[in-house]
Order: sequence, then structure tokens, then C-alpha cells
Amino acid sequence: MAAIATTTTIPRVVIIGAGFGGLAAAHALKHAPVDLTIVDRRNFHLFQPLLYQVATASLSPADIAAPIRSVLRGQANARVVLDKVVDVDRRARRVVTENGRSIPFDYLVVATGARHSYFGRDDWAVAAPGIKTVDDATRVRAKILKALEEAELEDDEAIRKALLTFVIVGGGPTGVEMAGAIAELVRHAAGRDFRRISSDNISIVLVEAGPRILPGFREELSSSAHHALEAMGVSVAIRTMVTDVSDEGVMLGAMRLPARTVIWAAGVKASPAGRWLDAPVDRAGRVKVEADFSLPDDPAILVIGDTAAYAGTDGAMLPGVAPAAKQAGHWVGSLIATRVLSAPEPVPFRYRDAGSMATIGRKFAIVDLGWLRLTGFPAWLLWSAAHVWFLIGFRSRLSVATSWLWSYLTYERGARLITGREIALARPATETLQQKDAA
Amino acid sequence: MAAIATTTTIPRVVIIGAGFGGLAAAHALKHAPVDLTIVDRRNFHLFQPLLYQVATASLSPADIAAPIRSVLRGQANARVVLDKVVDVDRRARRVVTENGRSIPFDYLVVATGARHSYFGRDDWAVAAPGIKTVDDATRVRAKILKALEEAELEDDEAIRKALLTFVIVGGGPTGVEMAGAIAELVRHAAGRDFRRISSDNISIVLVEAGPRILPGFREELSSSAHHALEAMGVSVAIRTMVTDVSDEGVMLGAMRLPARTVIWAAGVKASPAGRWLDAPVDRAGRVKVEADFSLPDDPAILVIGDTAAYAGTDGAMLPGVAPAAKQAGHWVGSLIATRVLSAPEPVPFRYRDAGSMATIGRKFAIVDLGWLRLTGFPAWLLWSAAHVWFLIGFRSRLSVATSWLWSYLTYERGARLITGREIALARPATETLQQKDAA
Repeated sequence: MAAIATTTTIPRVVIIGAGFGGLAAAHALKHAPVDLTIVDRRNFHLFQPLLYQVATASLSPADIAAPIRSVLRGQANARVVLDKVVDVDRRARRVVTENGRSIPFDYLVVATGARHSYFGRDDWAVAAPGIKTVDDATRVRAKILKALEEAELEDDEAIRKALLTFVIVGGGPTGVEMAGAIAELVRHAAGRDFRRISSDNISIVLVEAGPRILPGFREELSSSAHHALEAMGVSVAIRTMVTDVSDEGVMLGAMRLPARTVIWAAGVKASPAGRWLDAPVDRAGRVKVEADFSLPDDPAILVIGDTAAYAGTDGAMLPGVAPAAKQAGHWVGSLIATRVLSAPEPVPFRYRDAGSMATIGRKFAIVDLGWLRLTGFPAWLLWSAAHVWFLIGFRSRLSVATSWLWSYLTYERGARLITGREIALARPATETLQQKDAA
Repeated sequence: MAAIATTTTIPRVVIIGAGFGGLAAAHALKHAPVDLTIVDRRNFHLFQPLLYQVATASLSPADIAAPIRSVLRGQANARVVLDKVVDVDRRARRVVTENGRSIPFDYLVVATGARHSYFGRDDWAVAAPGIKTVDDATRVRAKILKALEEAELEDDEAIRKALLTFVIVGGGPTGVEMAGAIAELVRHAAGRDFRRISSDNISIVLVEAGPRILPGFREELSSSAHHALEAMGVSVAIRTMVTDVSDEGVMLGAMRLPARTVIWAAGVKASPAGRWLDAPVDRAGRVKVEADFSLPDDPAILVIGDTAAYAGTDGAMLPGVAPAAKQAGHWVGSLIATRVLSAPEPVPFRYRDAGSMATIGRKFAIVDLGWLRLTGFPAWLLWSAAHVWFLIGFRSRLSVATSWLWSYLTYERGARLITGREIALARPATETLQQKDAA
């Protein structure tokens, strides 16, 4: 077969996904004698940890995104393909794309991330969007801002109340950060611009099924975050299950909570890579991999990041966070480099947990680095510094830093735009207005 | 009638459109004893003169947009309604919106701007989008960037050539600025990131039906802009008619020019306000108005900006530019204020032409202030200062200034994102790839 014959010359490495894992793998292969192809359905790498700030109008999409070609500009052995992968032909050793491309590989790194999971209730997705992509974020931003616009003009008290009730489902870092950011957006920045919206008629509810928010953090930090949210006016409902979601609101157990804005931060499932690879997956759709991230029956196919179910030597699962994806990407990149060069393999992968942080608004964060635990404003400063630092690209860093400083000093929201084609407001409000008008 | 009865208390002024004209009218009414409503289908005011920089990835939408509520925050007599106007009921003195609102007025200011005109060939709109809204601009940006991505991967020479041919139809300021910006984007910023795209295989063609580009400028300035464009590698085709447009390219007279990216900057027509008002319009759809911008048979309905056909005392038509809209807005706002207060009417409107400027890339502009004519880099500096100065909102000014400085120093494009749901690439390229793959 021609495809195999060419491997005797220069090995072809294909990386699917230019997220944290995929880019780290590419960088680790920078000096390796390989022919590298990175395939992504977007032309930019996205700094996902700050995506909630796009959804809450603090940052613009371009602030947290960098074109993949720019990121890999200095890497002579890499080429970038903008296309959506739809299948992997393991027998022919080819990646198949939506546009009919068929990209041969000798080594394949799958780093396609995760999507939202509605635990089998995919019909909730329309009423309760999550935030994984730039388009998700601008859509959620439009939804929040439109709810405020409608509330300002609404005379029916019950509808106003539903328009000014914001429910965030899921008490992990994304849900907590989103709740804090919405509280600030709605109460401060918007509060100045709207005549008929006051803090009294706004409800922000963070719903968590477990016994506490931020279960990944130590109990005292999670409790401190809980109090900080409440101080900002967020109602935190723990041990509370969402049993239904519709355009009209949510059911919390048997209680109906009317709310026009519901945001989903409750769960993820892996991308459909398991299906492409025809490989065993766990309950969250993550591909089960070996200690070197390879498929059990295919050492040249490596799966990393949120797409992989990776059990460490201690039995603990590798968490679905950016540092874990980066470390795994770097490790598999090095592994491929050593195999190609027939060099000794790297020491077995071991996850170095550098700690966790989460922020609640523009004044408060919690940080746990193991050797250092912080809460409050010092933690927020550290959080900001770390996030600006890890942003790819100097301009993004500069831009985010100035946006934050500006927003911090003035409570102003710079990116408060409702874009997109669907500007029509929600139907129920319309009907009510028409009835009132007729009356 | 109840609606009229209330006018004995506080007059209701409705302004449709929060562009340059509408906002100027609102500001002029700041201290007037009126109940003011501004209706716009967007929640933000857009600084349209820089929209082409969003389309060419220099700026983010939020850099050139300011929430209408923020702009009018200090104006206690104004309320903002986010909704799309679909009709004006002149008999009942009400503005009717898409969402069934019916807003009563005693005075109405119509400032709804203009849209593209394809001179009766609306079927060209899909293949040759224009740039009037934020969504237009992000769509054009995605189109240009996708063409580069496809060209990078395309092996068929003819298709590559068509992908790397960019046609701008219309040699007015928008077309000229767009051509210059595309030349820079494609040749410099992108040129570094793509392996197989070089200046040699890129064509940028500016097509103008008339005898010269920038017909609104003096001949020597327009000729200087012509040379500057050619120096940047733009082919300027004057006295050239576009006779057909399709996904495959354009017909220039009898010559077929294959091009995958065609951008329309050739003509505008007024918004459908003439239809709502049931008023006589000119050929471009602009409502014919009196010397005080009122409808001939309705002194309380005033039409300004690109929506109006206004002949000055010298018989010359008021041009469709931002300063003219601003001046008219200010004047009609003052007129309403004096009528409400039964004060003496303002002196008749007279357009003060402060001059014109246009920029070609990041180094060259032409400026004609009447008493001062500049070309080249000094003109570019003046152009930049003027545009940053007139941007609404301090943050936008700061953000645009830093973006420009960054882009100027590094040739880097900060907002090179392909967003939106339609990431699928063009069909023709796909088929070719599949055939090649099968071969």
C-alpha cells in the first residue's frame, strides 16, 4: 500500500484538535523529523477558561482566541487544515473530513475535547445553552442582554420576574464563575443603564445537585466561595436536582422556578471520537486508553484531554482541565518524537497537579496550590495574573489586561452587543404585549 | 382620541434608528421637556466608517460599537426600545414593531439608514455580500479567511487562483478602504502564516464603473489614491461594469474573472421607511423631504440621514455621510425642542462640509478639508486621530488605538477568527478534492 510505503521516508503525524492538548503535542514535536498536520474545524485556538467572560460581555471573542496558523508560525514541520473530522479509517490509516479530505497518518493524536451533556435530556439544550464555543458564548450573551431589554419594557410583573431570573445549572468552576459574572453584569453595569430594573427584582440562582459547590476544592475554600456568591446576591441551591427545563423556567425537584435565562454548566461528554475510532468508551463517552494514552489495540493512536478516560497509576482519573490536557499533549508529543528517532521512551506519564483556582466576580477568587491557599482579593490578583499569563499571544494578553482594568475601574462592560441574526424577542412576551396593546 | 389628549401634557418624541442621525437628534433634545423613545433593532450604536476593519480582521465588533443605553445613560428623558419597526400608522400616530409594540408619538424622527443596492440584481447578494452591519462584517471576514485556508490546501491551479482573487465592486470610500485593507491582510499578515500562498498568486481587483475612483474627491487626490492602491498590488479597473456575479466569479463586461470572494460596495438604497410612511421616494428609495426635513404633508414627521432625499438651498443633494446625518439630527432635535417650547425656530439648516478623508492601508490616506489637502502618511495620521476621536466611548477609543498601534508595529491581525455556524467550506472545492482523492 502506497500509504504505508511512504512511512519509510518521513513519518506522518496527524493531530485532531488545536485545543490545549493538541497544541502542546504539536509543540513537543517541533524539532522531530515528522510531517505534522493539525486538523481543526475552527481556524483559532480558544482559551476556554475565559469563555464565560465573553458570555457576560467583559471580553470580545478575539481577546481569547489566537489563529492556529499564528500559534504554529514558527514550526516548519507543521501544516494546518481547517476542516471538520467525521471519521477515522483505522484500516487505511486515514482521517476523513466533512469536505471529503482523507489525510493519511502513521501516528494519530486525538484531542477533540468535550461537549455539553444533558444526561439524556438533549431537548433541554435549546432552553438551557451551555458555553463551549465562541458561538455558544455570543449566543448566551445575547440571551442575557435581551432578557434585560425585555424586562425593561415589560409591564406584567410575573413575566418581568421570569425575565430577571437567571438560573445557572451546575456548581463546578464554570457555573460558579458564570454566576458571579452574571451577578456583576446584571446588578452593576446594566443597573445603571436601565430605568426599571433594580437589584430587588433580580434573582440569580446557582443550582448544584451535590452537597456543596466546587466539589473539586477543599471544603473550606468551597464554603468561602459559597459565602462570596451569596454576598453578591446569588442564591446558591445545593442538594437540588433540576428535573425539567423549558423556555418558561426550570423544575427544581417539585418546585417550579419561572426563568427566561437558564445556562447549563452541569456536565460534559466527550466528542464523538470514540465512534470514529470504534473504541470502547466510558459512560461520559471518553475513550479508554492505556498508560501511554494509546488505544489498547493500536499503539500509534493516542487520545488525550477531555476525549480520554485515563486512569493514573494511583487509580485516579486524570481530570478534565487545561493543565492535564497540556501535560498529556506534551507527553505524547515527546513519545512520538522518541519512537520516530528510535530513542529511549520518556519516563511514564505522571500528572503534576499545579493546583486549582476559581474566581467569583472582580474582587474575589479562591486559589489552592497545595502549598498555598488564598481567598478574596489577593487570590483574585493571582488568578488574573495567571490567566493573562497563560493566554496565547501578546496582543491577547495586552487586550485582556486593559479590558479587565477598564472594567474594574469603571464597572463598564465593553462588549455588550447583541449580535446574530435572530434578534426577534421571545414569543411569550410578544403575545402578552399584543394583548396589553389591544386592551 | 386618548393618544392626542395626552399631548397636552408632555409631547412624545419617537426616534427610529440610533445611528449618527438618531443619536444626534436625541442629544439635541436632552434638556427639552419631552418624553423621548429611541427604537432600534440593535442594542448598540455602530461606528460604521470603521466596519471594514472588522471585515478585514483588524478590529473586533465591540471596538466600534457602544450600547445605546450607555450612550444615553445621562439623558433622563430618553428610553430605549430594542425592537424592529415594521410600520408607521400615521393616522393613529403610532410606530408599529415586529413584536407587536405600538408606540405613540407626537413627533417622529426617522433615521433608519440605508442598505445595499444591487441595482435590481438582488440575487447577487449571496455571492457578493456588502458590509453594513456587524453580522455582514463578520461574515465577510469569515469568507476572506476561509478562502485563504482553502487556497493553502488546494492543488488545482485554476481553483487556487480563483480562491486568491478578491474582487471589490465599487470605487467609493468603502470600496477603496476595503481594497487597501484586504491587500494588507492577505499579503502581509496572512502571507507569513501560509506556506503555499505568495504575493505572486494573489489578485485584488477594485472595479469602478465611472472614470475614476473616489469621485467625491478632487481629481488629484483620487489619482493619488489610485496610485497608492496600485503600489499595494491592487488592480484598479475603472470604466468597468460588473455585468454578472456568481459563486464562481464576476463578469466584467464580456470578460470572465474567476473569483471566490466578491465584496459589494457599489450602491445603497434607503431603508423601507418610505413604504412605512407611504411617502414619495426617489430612485434610491429615499424619502423626499422639505427644507426642515419634514414630510410635505406632515410637519411632525422628520426624515434624516441616508433615509432622506434632501436638496439644499443650492439644489445639491445632502450627501449620505456621517457628518451630514449628525448635523441633520442635531438640527431636527433643536427644531422639535423649539416647537415644544413655542420658542423661535432655529435658523434654516445649512450643511457645513468639514471635508472628506479616506485611507488606503496603514500608511496612506487622502484628506481634503477644503483649506487643507494632504496625502500619504501625514494624512493617515490625521485620519487615525479623527476616527479614534469620533468613536463613541472612551474604552472603544483606547481599544482601537491600541489595536491599530499593535497592528501597525507588527503587521499582526488580532481578530482573525472564522466564527458562525457555517464552517463548511464551499462545495466546488470539496468535489474537486474528492475527485483528486479518488484518483
